[in-house]
Amino acid sequence: MERVDKILSGGIVLTMNAAMDVFVNGAVAIKGDSIVAVGTADAIAEQYLADDLVLCDGQVIMPGLVNTHTHVPMTLLRGMADDLRLDVWLIGYIMPTEQSFVNPYFCRLGTKIACAEMIRSGVTMFADMYYFEADVAAAAAEVGMRAVCGQTVLKFPAPDAASYEESLQYTRQFIQTWKGHPLIVPAVAPHAPYTCTDEILSACAALAREFDVPLIIHVSETRQEVEESRAEFQMPVVPRIKKLGVLDAKTLAAHCVHLDSGEIRTLFNHRTGVAHCPTSNLKLASGIAPVREMLERGLNVGIGTDGPASNNDLDMFEEVRLAAILAKGATLDPTAVPAKQALLMATRMGAQAMHMGEITGSLEVGKRADIIVVDIRTLHNSPKFSRDEDAIYSQIVYAAKSTDVRHVMVNGVWLMRDQQLLTVDEAALLAEANALAEKIDQFLIAREGDLLNKLIAIGGVERAESFEIQVKSHLPQRVDAEAFVAPLLSDPRVQVVRKSHYRQYDTYFTFNDEAQGRVRYREDDALNAEGEVTHVRTRLTYTSPIKEREFDRAVLLSRSQFIAPATRPLRFYREYFRASAEYEVHKTRHRWHILYKGVLFYLNVDELLLPKVDGTFVEIKSQTWSMRDAEYKATLVSELLALLGMTEELRVHKEYIEFATA
Amino acid sequence: MERVDKILSGGIVLTMNAAMDVFVNGAVAIKGDSIVAVGTADAIAEQYLADDLVLCDGQVIMPGLVNTHTHVPMTLLRGMADDLRLDVWLIGYIMPTEQSFVNPYFCRLGTKIACAEMIRSGVTMFADMYYFEADVAAAAAEVGMRAVCGQTVLKFPAPDAASYEESLQYTRQFIQTWKGHPLIVPAVAPHAPYTCTDEILSACAALAREFDVPLIIHVSETRQEVEESRAEFQMPVVPRIKKLGVLDAKTLAAHCVHLDSGEIRTLFNHRTGVAHCPTSNLKLASGIAPVREMLERGLNVGIGTDGPASNNDLDMFEEVRLAAILAKGATLDPTAVPAKQALLMATRMGAQAMHMGEITGSLEVGKRADIIVVDIRTLHNSPKFSRDEDAIYSQIVYAAKSTDVRHVMVNGVWLMRDQQLLTVDEAALLAEANALAEKIDQFLIAREGDLLNKLIAIGGVERAESFEIQVKSHLPQRVDAEAFVAPLLSDPRVQVVRKSHYRQYDTYFTFNDEAQGRVRYREDDALNAEGEVTHVRTRLTYTSPIKEREFDRAVLLSRSQFIAPATRPLRFYREYFRASAEYEVHKTRHRWHILYKGVLFYLNVDELLLPKVDGTFVEIKSQTWSMRDAEYKATLVSELLALLGMTEELRVHKEYIEFATA
Repeated sequence: MERVDKILSGGIVLTMNAAMDVFVNGAVAIKGDSIVAVGTADAIAEQYLADDLVLCDGQVIMPGLVNTHTHVPMTLLRGMADDLRLDVWLIGYIMPTEQSFVNPYFCRLGTKIACAEMIRSGVTMFADMYYFEADVAAAAAEVGMRAVCGQTVLKFPAPDAASYEESLQYTRQFIQTWKGHPLIVPAVAPHAPYTCTDEILSACAALAREFDVPLIIHVSETRQEVEESRAEFQMPVVPRIKKLGVLDAKTLAAHCVHLDSGEIRTLFNHRTGVAHCPTSNLKLASGIAPVREMLERGLNVGIGTDGPASNNDLDMFEEVRLAAILAKGATLDPTAVPAKQALLMATRMGAQAMHMGEITGSLEVGKRADIIVVDIRTLHNSPKFSRDEDAIYSQIVYAAKSTDVRHVMVNGVWLMRDQQLLTVDEAALLAEANALAEKIDQFLIAREGDLLNKLIAIGGVERAESFEIQVKSHLPQRVDAEAFVAPLLSDPRVQVVRKSHYRQYDTYFTFNDEAQGRVRYREDDALNAEGEVTHVRTRLTYTSPIKEREFDRAVLLSRSQFIAPATRPLRFYREYFRASAEYEVHKTRHRWHILYKGVLFYLNVDELLLPKVDGTFVEIKSQTWSMRDAEYKATLVSELLALLGMTEELRVHKEYIEFATA
Repeated sequence: MERVDKILSGGIVLTMNAAMDVFVNGAVAIKGDSIVAVGTADAIAEQYLADDLVLCDGQVIMPGLVNTHTHVPMTLLRGMADDLRLDVWLIGYIMPTEQSFVNPYFCRLGTKIACAEMIRSGVTMFADMYYFEADVAAAAAEVGMRAVCGQTVLKFPAPDAASYEESLQYTRQFIQTWKGHPLIVPAVAPHAPYTCTDEILSACAALAREFDVPLIIHVSETRQEVEESRAEFQMPVVPRIKKLGVLDAKTLAAHCVHLDSGEIRTLFNHRTGVAHCPTSNLKLASGIAPVREMLERGLNVGIGTDGPASNNDLDMFEEVRLAAILAKGATLDPTAVPAKQALLMATRMGAQAMHMGEITGSLEVGKRADIIVVDIRTLHNSPKFSRDEDAIYSQIVYAAKSTDVRHVMVNGVWLMRDQQLLTVDEAALLAEANALAEKIDQFLIAREGDLLNKLIAIGGVERAESFEIQVKSHLPQRVDAEAFVAPLLSDPRVQVVRKSHYRQYDTYFTFNDEAQGRVRYREDDALNAEGEVTHVRTRLTYTSPIKEREFDRAVLLSRSQFIAPATRPLRFYREYFRASAEYEVHKTRHRWHILYKGVLFYLNVDELLLPKVDGTFVEIKSQTWSMRDAEYKATLVSELLALLGMTEELRVHKEYIEFATA
């Protein structure tokens, strides 16, 4: 007889191993953090002894569920805002709340609540992507859960980093600190192809390869993302990230809703794991992922709840069930993704998708003891049929609930026994969460008075710009625009992408409380070569009152702008915003989109008609996402000015509205 | 102070009334079976006194959920067979099991288990459709639940009736017995347009109107149903049942997956209620119902779980959540069916869809006290935000679980307190259910040895015929087929629908055990006017060994046949079925589909080539579904034979295979 630490005996053991072995009256023996034996209860009883013997009659002993995609600290934002347009939800609620509240404390608290909820619902491992991921890791480790923790990197300022260089540095340090931990696997998480530049994606891929850690990324979640990728990069999402080396890492791609067959093949060839998030994809109206095709291609497709702000829970039982039935509805084939396959996705295959298949995801000798016991004697799970061997999978997937989970063990350590959590003080956490929710409520109520939210409320915003490089000069004389820019455009380093000619009628709404920022209603009349109006576009732009920062050679406007289509008449906005004052600015504009040394700039040659100002204005602008990039582009702007023959003295710092208010 | 029976106080009261009033610290007072007051806790405390005062702090007091479509006794078949093609599931498993096991005992036991499960998950009223509905009603009333009980009527023999006339008679008696019961509303349930003849549908509608009881029917559940309706009746499903008067009753239409806008308007104009069953529609791959359009049109759309054999549970919390998110995914609009609306569908609007809106579905003075209390202090339901008034709906719909339901009251009577069921002995029911499941297991295991199941296993069956009227005659001389039938076809009461000409090569597999029935593999070579083969079709037909019954004037084959496309070569079937013997029959066939007095008949004029039999065979066949119909058609057959000049002496009773085996 061999002495081991724990034996679970007498239940139906679903090994989820390659042979999908099932032991109807089975047992599992555990020593330290690992499984030392799996078999019939009799065979285990003959060979092993343990003080901690758990009898599991009438219950199912199986690998813990694997949640392959979530943002655990967002438990603290659950139910804060629902049933909204994605832009309104994200830009109007989630992002501002995150900017104001997300800090290490928030992340630890939210993670612990998430861990408690996941343990209760039978999850033993999860893949996370959020900010302050070192705190997520610390909290998960403290609770005793297994996790792949992905530190977010993106081109916008984030709660834990003002620029992407900062977050890349933070990620490197995070990986160095946590690599080799028995429960936590650190990872780098470039947020998504549309929120990262090529440079960011390449740098993240290099970092993941340098440390041989997983890389987590959102991929092709919405149709819009794919369309924009095609427009900007002339290819869909997967080829782009492949080119940048992202798939050469141990990559886990979340969502993958809008992939074509070629992209699916590419992911297979690179052993990229997929996290399928059916609830989130439905609730946010993203679409339905081609799960069956991905599975048929041989991809490792796991299942994820996504963050609890968009789900709104972390219940993997609901998620597995939905994955199984949604695939049938989507393919119009009731045999698609049967229960057995769905449960495999939620266990071993999910672990493989996370590149953790070597150590967990099934009950096999040598793997870590990540085990749950599910009570299927409940009313909603009766009766029990035995004819069909696969009926047990169907019971777990279609009828069992998360609340049927009785015991949970991770790495050989009990985290829940008889539905009592052993490593988390639920009541204390809930009290803290509710106190924080009250503060967030207050913050949002105050915020709803402000201008940006009023804008969002009536139609959403189309684009948010965080940083813009801008320089403006004034030539005292009227010039012919084409002739004036000719020397610049003939430079071999300059390539013209687009040329347009407008008359612009701007109405500015300003407010006595300058902290409100201001709103501009613009009518763009596009002109053809004969000066006739070919089409008209109206847009709203909100400009925040954040002050600008000046560089040596140009101006960096850290001013954030939100642009929305103006679908209603000016009169509506006038009444809606109730501005303190209103100003008109009319001008003509020749605009070139040019690439200079491969960087996109906007070159405007303007005549101010109202208020009437003599001479010609020349503007050069470019969008930017990091301080280093901004400095580099400021240098390029100086070079462009030199090519135009514009000297330092011609520089003006006034915005057009200031001519009207003067 | 007024004395009442019960007061629920201190919780968030969601009235779900027309104004959607919410009392954050509210209360409800109950006297007898009804609600006498709803308001703030303070206001109720000032005016009412009760011995039974239930404090509900931190909990939600709301109307019980309404499950608008289910088949409750099928709890006993839950998990018996899953992930199968619809035909395999239905014909291979559900129907034969029902034929053998469904009886009054089965229905009472299954209903009680279903009621226990529904009470646990906060359901207070359901709409049922099954067999022996008087026993369903008795069991539901015994447990204390409110139900609209629909007795099934259909053209096939059912467990509770050999013919539709029998079940219509049963239904009339059922309605007379139960009408006026405080909890049970009897209803007539013609199963579906495709399982009912025009006559059955009209008769059911008349019965429902006669007694002013609801009519429950499955409508447009699958695309195939709609296509077949168009092919057979030259219109989709709703116009057909409208024409037959079905919508003039208090009708509740389940599924409504494949409706066009005109049909939706028709349902609205007739105040037809709709039961939306999202889980079932996904799991059985039926499709996604146009819920948003139906709601925008003003239809009362409720939510239903469908039967637990196709769901596999009766959890309305899961169902409401899925209804809310699936509508968003299907319309690609995240604002579709917000939580508030989804919860309305599951309460007041569901009651209205069931034509029960006058007495239940919301917390209003005078309505029956059908109330649940949901504990939202659980971990998966935290934190609690208060800024947005609708956040409480979002919590209930997106985060709460059925297991959060604490108390349930129907008609002023407690059915569950502190999650303890008060009117059902769960343990005893489960023991009975498991004993029955063992017997069903044995039955199915034995059955899997048989021929029909082997046929089903390899490709499903396309069509099952229960009864066929058939007569065969033999003319000693060879005749020209066209000339021979000319007198018949020229009769003004005869209309030719289709004419075809085949060479048929049949291979019969027979078995020493005659109880096995037999299988025929047929190759049909269609011939054009020049006798050239234009296309080839191969089919399998299984014929059961049930004996035929003879009428006065013709023969009624009660023999049931199952027809499947033969997608594999003959050799495969030879090996697969391992027949005891094999026979070949070759013939040429001229076939006319004719309508005689509006009834469809098949007229075959055959020459037997192998075995070689001189002369000409003439067959007349027609499908039938009830005894009375069969007798009527037998009369018509006699008339057709007379028109052909065929006398009694020419009649033969041998099947073609009998010439080969002779």
